[in-house]
Amino acid sequence: MTVTFAQGFEAAGVEAGISAVEGKKDLALVVNRGPLEVGAGVFTTNRFCAAPVQWSRKVVADGRVDAVILNSGGANACTGQAGYDQSAATAAKVAELLGTDPDRIAVCSTGLIGELLPLDKVLAGAEAAYAKIAADEDAGQDAAHAIMTTDTRPKTVERESEAGFRVGGMVKGSGMIAPQLATMLCVITTDAVVTAGQCQAALARGVDVTFNRIDVDGCMSTNDTVLLLASGASGVEPDPDEFNAMVADCCASLSRQIVGDGEGSSHTIRITVSGAVSVDAALACGRAVASSNLLKCAISGNDPNWGRIVSSLGIVPADVAPYDPDDVTVDVNGVRICDGGKPGVDRSEVDMTPREIDIDIDLNAGEAEATVWTDDLTHEYVHINADYES
Amino acid sequence: MTVTFAQGFEAAGVEAGISAVEGKKDLALVVNRGPLEVGAGVFTTNRFCAAPVQWSRKVVADGRVDAVILNSGGANACTGQAGYDQSAATAAKVAELLGTDPDRIAVCSTGLIGELLPLDKVLAGAEAAYAKIAADEDAGQDAAHAIMTTDTRPKTVERESEAGFRVGGMVKGSGMIAPQLATMLCVITTDAVVTAGQCQAALARGVDVTFNRIDVDGCMSTNDTVLLLASGASGVEPDPDEFNAMVADCCASLSRQIVGDGEGSSHTIRITVSGAVSVDAALACGRAVASSNLLKCAISGNDPNWGRIVSSLGIVPADVAPYDPDDVTVDVNGVRICDGGKPGVDRSEVDMTPREIDIDIDLNAGEAEATVWTDDLTHEYVHINADYES
Repeated sequence: MTVTFAQGFEAAGVEAGISAVEGKKDLALVVNRGPLEVGAGVFTTNRFCAAPVQWSRKVVADGRVDAVILNSGGANACTGQAGYDQSAATAAKVAELLGTDPDRIAVCSTGLIGELLPLDKVLAGAEAAYAKIAADEDAGQDAAHAIMTTDTRPKTVERESEAGFRVGGMVKGSGMIAPQLATMLCVITTDAVVTAGQCQAALARGVDVTFNRIDVDGCMSTNDTVLLLASGASGVEPDPDEFNAMVADCCASLSRQIVGDGEGSSHTIRITVSGAVSVDAALACGRAVASSNLLKCAISGNDPNWGRIVSSLGIVPADVAPYDPDDVTVDVNGVRICDGGKPGVDRSEVDMTPREIDIDIDLNAGEAEATVWTDDLTHEYVHINADYES
Repeated sequence: MTVTFAQGFEAAGVEAGISAVEGKKDLALVVNRGPLEVGAGVFTTNRFCAAPVQWSRKVVADGRVDAVILNSGGANACTGQAGYDQSAATAAKVAELLGTDPDRIAVCSTGLIGELLPLDKVLAGAEAAYAKIAADEDAGQDAAHAIMTTDTRPKTVERESEAGFRVGGMVKGSGMIAPQLATMLCVITTDAVVTAGQCQAALARGVDVTFNRIDVDGCMSTNDTVLLLASGASGVEPDPDEFNAMVADCCASLSRQIVGDGEGSSHTIRITVSGAVSVDAALACGRAVASSNLLKCAISGNDPNWGRIVSSLGIVPADVAPYDPDDVTVDVNGVRICDGGKPGVDRSEVDMTPREIDIDIDLNAGEAEATVWTDDLTHEYVHINADYES
């Protein structure tokens, strides 16, 4: 059901001819029919942020978003003033169709960096999408398909509270995925009666423990955008804690789907670091392990190579994560193969056949813990990224 | 000529049966016959440093090293007290053969982390190597072969000053290569008349601008060791600047050979960042680019994908490297494909056929520059590291 699961939203996904892939839907439109038109967003911190990010950051600043237009087939990043003008023109076209102001229209783009979009196709696509928008499931699925790039499947979520409000969403992303967002575009919608401040707070909290803790390849994108739109159409004012939890839960589901579809991956790797002096210390350790190409290759070869786990842990400075290497234990899929910094159970005892590989690291230095997710590194990842739009 | 190029050194490389590779030389011995027995070293900063690193760090602390014994086929890392005892026993055996103290014998190991060495084979190998040591070129080459792991060729260097002293060396390393050393063992020898303090200073300076600026896969090893031994056998007291320059030049040559033999690589990538406010800022930018898996895949596909260059630059925080994205230029193999943060010359103009790819980034923010080296990321890298000793 995706972005149309919550009441008050319409969507469409069409083939606008932007993508080089024949027959691929490449333009999505999500319209908030109200009665509220509340919006909030979290964006990439990359200093080379794309034109649509620069545009949309201004749009969400006042907390009102009437619609979002998203395209695959081109990132419109590193395109200078001409690129910014394209994002503005795209917003203006949607605003004209909706009878609203351009500064209430968010714009998202994904694809190759460094090339302008075929603007005439984008504008014609906006008209085609507007002509097709609907509130049904097919419309939401079309939108989710239209934002895909190297994704092998659409990624969507829906949740309904007992109090009667709904949250739904869609995301794209499978490469250039790093902590601190990812190469991803995400739109979450809700029909709860909430303010822009509530939305921004819920989104920031949710993103921090989900999208900011996944890492496919350590590469941060220029275009990452996560938007939360609220229509108020359910008439339900949610309990704040319940609302926050539902938004976070949607972010968690969508971020897990990204890792589960990481480019060319054969294993999803969950890394939990416990016994840390702080969550930041646990995160630093988890991210160091998650970014090890050597470990990710070993996992793709079904080798629970714990030497590559501890050698990655060892690069985290002691002032960031104090621990004694001689106290560290590492379990892979429940088998303690490193015990007190030394060999434990023989690694041949580890069953590496499941898709999900669980790495549990106990630093034995404190009470805090954190979990990060990544994928293994395969021949297929190299193939996709050596040959992608080259 | 390698470590035996300088007068006063003898070496050997033998097959001790430590490596799983049939017929491979896996144990090397380098003996300083004096009249000086000066030694200095630089070691990994990995907190899970291997037993031989713990041992050798103590050996070089007093500036005297009579010999170095090195093995491939096992890293003796994360092996606890038993591993440390193996390094100590290995040093004791060499000391016994030479008639000196164990605390004058440096020990280096490389291979799989987390397993003890077959100590009896190491000790027998030490005896066999001692029986064969010689000062000729073959002996030096045998030693260089014996320390190889996934290296496809031995890596050696020799330099002779007009003043009549010599510097030579050998290194191994092709994977788990990161800034801040690399998975590498390096022994450099000189017959100059120098103090341990001069050696330590020359080595620290040389390593900082060479071995610490290469990055094959961003993974820092537990075993990295660079040793400089001086025999004084030439009788020449070198000009300090010339000595420093020659040591740095040897480090540069050996580090370049590592990158040139990076696991499975098809391109060597030189990244020079100029126009930075400081060398540290330039280095931070260069390392961010060098660590991008996406860029490294693109290069392996002969795609000068500058979007992946600037998106990597963009993750460096502004307080680390101040610059304006709209001022940045990127040249690949001499073609300015990104000009002022926007597309420049069409990337189809770039000739990607050479082995070496030159990426020149000008931040236009200052006067400082720095160069780092890396390799592309290929199917072969994944194959080597998915299947290596699994």
